[in-house]
Amino acid sequence: MAAGSDSVLIVGSVALDSVETPSGKVERALGGAAVYSSIAASFFAPVRLVGVVGEDFPQEHVAFLTSRRIDTRGLQVVPGGKTFHWKGAYMGDLNQAETIATELNVFQSFSPKLPEDYRSSGFVFLANIDPELQLEVLDQIDSPKLTACDTMNFWIEGKKDALLDVLRRVDVAFMNDAEARQLTGESNLNRAANEIHELGPRYVVVKKGEHGAVMYCDQSMCFTAASYPVHEVVDPTGAGDSFAGGFMGFIARTGEVNEANLRRAVIYGSTLASFNVQDFSLNRFKRLTIKDIDGRYEEFRRIVHFEPAG
Amino acid sequence: MAAGSDSVLIVGSVALDSVETPSGKVERALGGAAVYSSIAASFFAPVRLVGVVGEDFPQEHVAFLTSRRIDTRGLQVVPGGKTFHWKGAYMGDLNQAETIATELNVFQSFSPKLPEDYRSSGFVFLANIDPELQLEVLDQIDSPKLTACDTMNFWIEGKKDALLDVLRRVDVAFMNDAEARQLTGESNLNRAANEIHELGPRYVVVKKGEHGAVMYCDQSMCFTAASYPVHEVVDPTGAGDSFAGGFMGFIARTGEVNEANLRRAVIYGSTLASFNVQDFSLNRFKRLTIKDIDGRYEEFRRIVHFEPAG
Repeated sequence: MAAGSDSVLIVGSVALDSVETPSGKVERALGGAAVYSSIAASFFAPVRLVGVVGEDFPQEHVAFLTSRRIDTRGLQVVPGGKTFHWKGAYMGDLNQAETIATELNVFQSFSPKLPEDYRSSGFVFLANIDPELQLEVLDQIDSPKLTACDTMNFWIEGKKDALLDVLRRVDVAFMNDAEARQLTGESNLNRAANEIHELGPRYVVVKKGEHGAVMYCDQSMCFTAASYPVHEVVDPTGAGDSFAGGFMGFIARTGEVNEANLRRAVIYGSTLASFNVQDFSLNRFKRLTIKDIDGRYEEFRRIVHFEPAG
Repeated sequence: MAAGSDSVLIVGSVALDSVETPSGKVERALGGAAVYSSIAASFFAPVRLVGVVGEDFPQEHVAFLTSRRIDTRGLQVVPGGKTFHWKGAYMGDLNQAETIATELNVFQSFSPKLPEDYRSSGFVFLANIDPELQLEVLDQIDSPKLTACDTMNFWIEGKKDALLDVLRRVDVAFMNDAEARQLTGESNLNRAANEIHELGPRYVVVKKGEHGAVMYCDQSMCFTAASYPVHEVVDPTGAGDSFAGGFMGFIARTGEVNEANLRRAVIYGSTLASFNVQDFSLNRFKRLTIKDIDGRYEEFRRIVHFEPAG
C-alpha cells in the first residue's frame, strides 16, 4: 500500500461566510465546501486540503485546520488577495439558502497545484467548486481507490459540459435532490439517479436535507437513510459538505470500498451533517468528539430498526 | 378475549372519485378514506366498515369490499341519495392534490350507528371524516385496545375544537407533515409532534409522502422510516389512508400493542401505501397478495440495513 493511501484529498472552496438564519447571524465566519468536508473527514482519516485564500484569511483558521490532521500545504495563499466570500440568508425555509452576495475574489484566477505527495492519495473528494478546477485536480492524481464529486446549481447551469466530464471520471456523485432533477430534467428521483449513473458514476448519493439520503449502486437504489431528527437547526450551511466529508473520511478509514462500508459511510455522513447544523460555521465540529459521533450513529440504528415480516 | 377483539372498526368517507394525474384519469372510481384503509387493513385482519353511500353506489364495489372479509353492515345506504364525490387533479407535483369539486351529498346528514357487535372491536380507526362523526363513533365503542384517528386541513381549519376532542381520546394520531404544522403552528416537525402528543395521543405518526414516515412514542421520536422507492407513481390518492389501514390491520393481527409491533406496523403501512400509488383507485390492491406485501416488507429491510459503528 502506497504511503498516504488512506488519506482523503479534498479540493473545494475555502470561504469567509456571512450567514443569517432565524437563530441569529455570523459575519465573515470560517466556511466553504472544502472546509466543512475536510473537518468532517478528519474525524476518520488524514486529510489533504487543496484550495485558495487571500491574505485576509485569519491565521487562527489555518491553525484550526492543521490541529485536525489536515495537511494545508495545498492551500495557496494569494499575496494581497481577498478570500472568497459568500453572504446568504435562510428565512422561513431552512432548506433553501438565499444568496445575497458572492465575491469570488482569489477564486477567479485559481489553478490548483498539488504537492507531489498528494498525488498518491487513496481517496479524492472534489467538493463544490468550478468543475474545470475539479478536472485539473483529477489530472494530477495517480490511481485512487475512490473518487467523488459534489456540485451546485450554478455549475449545472453555467458549466454543464465540464461537469459532465467530471461525472464521466468519478466513482461517486453527491448531489441534492434539486440538483439531480436539474441536471437530468427528470422529476422522479429514482429515474434522475439512474440517468446520472449512466453519465459515469457507479454510485449516486442523493442528499435530501431533512428527508435523509438515498444511495444508488449501479442500476438500482440500494440504500435509503432517514435523517437524524435535529430539534433545532441553527444554520444549515455546510450540511451537504459535512455529509460528503464524513462519508469519504469513513470510507478512507475502512480502506475498503464495498457496499456494507458505503452504507455505513452514508450514516456517518448524515451523522456529521446533523451535528454541523446545530451551530453556526464550524462551531459544533470544534467541540465534537468521535465518541459523540459513534453515539449518534448508534442512535440512528435504534430509530430505524424493525423486526422481520410476519 | 371478547369476540371480534382482533377486528378493526373503520369509519370514514366512502366515495366515488374523479382523479386526473400525469398518468391518466378515472371517472367516479371507487375511493374514500374508509375504503382505502379498510382494504389495506383487510390483508391482515377482519374489518368492520362504518360509512354512508347513496343509491348510486355500484353494487360491484360492495361486493369487492365483502369479498375481502370487510363487514359492511355498518355501511348505510341512503335511499335516493347520492354518494360523496371528490374530483381532484395532481399536476406537476404529485405530493399535492388540487381539489376541483367536493360534493358531500349523503354525508351532509350522516350519523353513524354501529351494529351492536361492532362495539367490541379491539382496534378502531377514525379515518378522515368530520371530527364530530369521529366522536359519535368513539361514544359507541366499548374498550378497544387501540384507537387512532386521521384528519385533514379542512377540519383543522373548520372544526378544530371537535378535532381536539378527538385527539384527547385516541391513542394514535396519524397526520401528514403539513397538517402537523398547521395544527400546531410549529414549523419544526419534531416540536410539532411533541405538541400533538401533549394534546392526547401517546403515539404520533407523521406521514411525509415520498419522504417516509416518523413515529413519536410519548415525548420522543422513536422510529423513522424511509419510503419505498416507487419508480412510477400513477395516482397518489389514498396513500395516507392505505398507510393507516395497513398499520392498524397489522397491529390487530399481532393483537399486541408494543413498540416493536408499532414499528413493524409503520413499515407495513408504508408498504401498502407504496403499492396503492402504483395504479388508480383501488386497482393495485385488487391484484395484491400477502406474499407481495411480505416480499416488499423484506425489501424495505434490505434497503435500510447497515452495520454497527466502528
